[in-house]
Amino acid sequence: MSINNILLLALQISILGNTLGGNVLIWPMEGSHWLNVKMIIDELIKKEHNVTVLVASGALFITPTYNSSLTFEIYKVPFGKEKIEGVIKDFVLAWMENRPSISTIWKFYQEIAKVMEDFHMVSREICDGVLKNQKLMEKLKKSKFEVLLSDPVFPCGDIVALKLGIPFMYSLRFSPASTVEKHCGKIPYPPSYVPAILSELTDQMSFTDRIRNFISYHLQDYMFDTLWKSWDSYYSKALGRPTTLCETMGKAEIWLMRTYWDFEFPRPYLPNFEFVGGLHCKPAQPLPKILWRYKGKKPATLGANTRLYDWIPQNDLLGHPKAKAFITHGGTNGIYEAIYHGIPMVGVPMFADQADNIVHMKAKGAAVEVNINTMTSADLLNALRTVINEPSYKENVMRLSRIHHDQPVKPLDRAVFWIEFVMRHKGAKHLRSAAHNLTWFQYHSLDVIGFLLACVATVIFLVTKCCLFSCRKFGKTGKKKKRE
Amino acid sequence: MSINNILLLALQISILGNTLGGNVLIWPMEGSHWLNVKMIIDELIKKEHNVTVLVASGALFITPTYNSSLTFEIYKVPFGKEKIEGVIKDFVLAWMENRPSISTIWKFYQEIAKVMEDFHMVSREICDGVLKNQKLMEKLKKSKFEVLLSDPVFPCGDIVALKLGIPFMYSLRFSPASTVEKHCGKIPYPPSYVPAILSELTDQMSFTDRIRNFISYHLQDYMFDTLWKSWDSYYSKALGRPTTLCETMGKAEIWLMRTYWDFEFPRPYLPNFEFVGGLHCKPAQPLPKILWRYKGKKPATLGANTRLYDWIPQNDLLGHPKAKAFITHGGTNGIYEAIYHGIPMVGVPMFADQADNIVHMKAKGAAVEVNINTMTSADLLNALRTVINEPSYKENVMRLSRIHHDQPVKPLDRAVFWIEFVMRHKGAKHLRSAAHNLTWFQYHSLDVIGFLLACVATVIFLVTKCCLFSCRKFGKTGKKKKRE
Repeated sequence: MSINNILLLALQISILGNTLGGNVLIWPMEGSHWLNVKMIIDELIKKEHNVTVLVASGALFITPTYNSSLTFEIYKVPFGKEKIEGVIKDFVLAWMENRPSISTIWKFYQEIAKVMEDFHMVSREICDGVLKNQKLMEKLKKSKFEVLLSDPVFPCGDIVALKLGIPFMYSLRFSPASTVEKHCGKIPYPPSYVPAILSELTDQMSFTDRIRNFISYHLQDYMFDTLWKSWDSYYSKALGRPTTLCETMGKAEIWLMRTYWDFEFPRPYLPNFEFVGGLHCKPAQPLPKILWRYKGKKPATLGANTRLYDWIPQNDLLGHPKAKAFITHGGTNGIYEAIYHGIPMVGVPMFADQADNIVHMKAKGAAVEVNINTMTSADLLNALRTVINEPSYKENVMRLSRIHHDQPVKPLDRAVFWIEFVMRHKGAKHLRSAAHNLTWFQYHSLDVIGFLLACVATVIFLVTKCCLFSCRKFGKTGKKKKRE
Repeated sequence: MSINNILLLALQISILGNTLGGNVLIWPMEGSHWLNVKMIIDELIKKEHNVTVLVASGALFITPTYNSSLTFEIYKVPFGKEKIEGVIKDFVLAWMENRPSISTIWKFYQEIAKVMEDFHMVSREICDGVLKNQKLMEKLKKSKFEVLLSDPVFPCGDIVALKLGIPFMYSLRFSPASTVEKHCGKIPYPPSYVPAILSELTDQMSFTDRIRNFISYHLQDYMFDTLWKSWDSYYSKALGRPTTLCETMGKAEIWLMRTYWDFEFPRPYLPNFEFVGGLHCKPAQPLPKILWRYKGKKPATLGANTRLYDWIPQNDLLGHPKAKAFITHGGTNGIYEAIYHGIPMVGVPMFADQADNIVHMKAKGAAVEVNINTMTSADLLNALRTVINEPSYKENVMRLSRIHHDQPVKPLDRAVFWIEFVMRHKGAKHLRSAAHNLTWFQYHSLDVIGFLLACVATVIFLVTKCCLFSCRKFGKTGKKKKRE
């Protein structure tokens, strides 16, 4: 064995068996976003890394549970749990009452803008809570973190990473019109065959659909740009130089996208995007006999065969051999559990990407949708009977399940691999496209096209002038000759 | 453990331990293309698959070596080895004498067109040799192949797969201007930051560079389209319906691209493209003491410390602990061996992508180039001294090496995984983008943009008309009133 070979082997061992343990910082997130990243944290701890989660004192979903490798760094914010609960409730209600479509988009936009104002205020207080807390920032600096993981829906993780001088990565489900992925992540989204998220379109589009999709991208882009614009000045101030939210986001080393091609329609992406949808799914554990999740007052009409639970292990339920169908609001986490265990779905979407997610599952033949605003109990029953009794639904979801399980590396392992990669190499610059260095008109080659058109125009102008000149000259000579 | 869990486990075992063995058909290729695919074949055999390689009787590089899992199906063609050798020689000479640049492109195009005529004639005879050999086609049909692997530079593998009713995949290094990847594979290539292959540009481009790149894409597209156009009628005739080479290529399930982000500049791609560059590299084996590969007459001036070999194990040589630098013509296979073993390069490019490959390695600080047409022995010596003595070259190539070795799954394993995936699932349709169903103007949304512009124009026209009408009417009324 040569020295080079030994070095190579040592390199491989150090890569495969990286159990020295690094320090990972997690920017706080709420709701299903937190549930998803929690799985990554658990896996990082299993691999002997030390994980620190920043938690605002008013956080709703994050429940600190300490162990030797997991630290929750709680910091003060001037609001309580009920504030976040209120924002989420307003958000869901605004959405359910104004399900966006091209005809209702303006009203939807106005309603959502009101809720977003609250959301941004809370987010800004969460940001200030860390960035203006010098003692905390000092402590974080001393902790020598090697990477920060954040969900860019909850801003400022990137600022903290830049201030600490460490690389950062994102975990993201989506942004409206994929504006963030497109403008900040530099992924091309051709509107001709990539349906805009929230448009409830699929990749099989008629001419009319493609017009709707085209408009949808631009409307959503406009909405996102206006609703998030105020962050540009916050980011500039925090980083002490003129910048934008988008420019800062573009510095993310890797984007862990919480979908995969079992769920998504194939579309272009860049090498620093990794699709890890379903990373939270795992084989099911045994269950109690009958289950029902319900938070609130017990209805008087409830039958004796129904039990109420505040929380149930949904993944274990879907993995139960007697699970025949899944009535779901259509969140990506739940849909992935259904795909993982191969359970057909009845979708009752409520807000955000849920309606769009159910459209994906319908297009792939694995779900039926009922409208929560108009449905009767007969509608729900019919939908359930359809997905249970028509074998195509089970067949289709099983096909998705086979695709999901047949990957070279499991989604969770890939997510952790790339986090560790960024820690090992202090980034992943070799995956970052040069598009980040271009302005928007350079990116679209508008300056080049403009220059070439100008050249062509000049040539045409000169040729025409020459022709006219010769015509006149020789014309005159001709005439002269004729006269002579 | 529930029944679902057991099924899941069984599914996973069947995926991981697929050793039942399938039947793989390989379309013939020549030169380094064959050397690369040979590694995949060896791995498939290790995994107990049966591999059949189609070989034209006049093949130059494929040397049939039989074993129980590997069959070479030799078929007659009306030319001998010397014909292919002649085409390759002409190709290299035409390229070396007319190294393409924007100023010399027309001469280069004319010279290459002559050689390509010969190449297409040979390729057509190779195609006919299989497609018109009914006995062979019958035999292939009976052999129940599950997948065909081909390099699309050597046409017709796709036709054979379609005629046999089996899925097919490609192994591809590049096509000029990436025309095939772009137009047939539907990958977007933004000319603003993705340098056109053969342009010798990098992803860091000035305004002038971007103009050159833009023109380069269009010139190469034109060259590829005209030089390969004749295959459209061949494909239509062979498949018995009007089609094109490109449309047929678009049906490939997976494209195994023979590069990776250690070598490539990051750029968009689609989920059915897998970057497996360097799959042929492996740890080095011991070597004899001093080595020299030279085929031809021994020069009288050769020193006593130099030995001549007809063939050497290049990978083992580069993995030798005393290997300090690699003088290479810049083929991708060789460059990957240098990256794998972390050896800085002196590039002496000759033809095809070689000059461009060396530009990549120069941009990444791992190589120096010398011009084969003009170099002196002092130039070569200086170049060698530079890469050996300036530590940055070793550091940079070691950085590429670390990136290369630090992947979740090794390139060869990924290549084989996706071949087996296509065999297990009879294709990989979930990775195929809907762009394949669109015409070029639909793909670029030109019909949608046209329609929307027409709508805007109509609205402007109507509003103007209305305004003019009101102005005239109220103007007249005004005048009338004035008069009254």
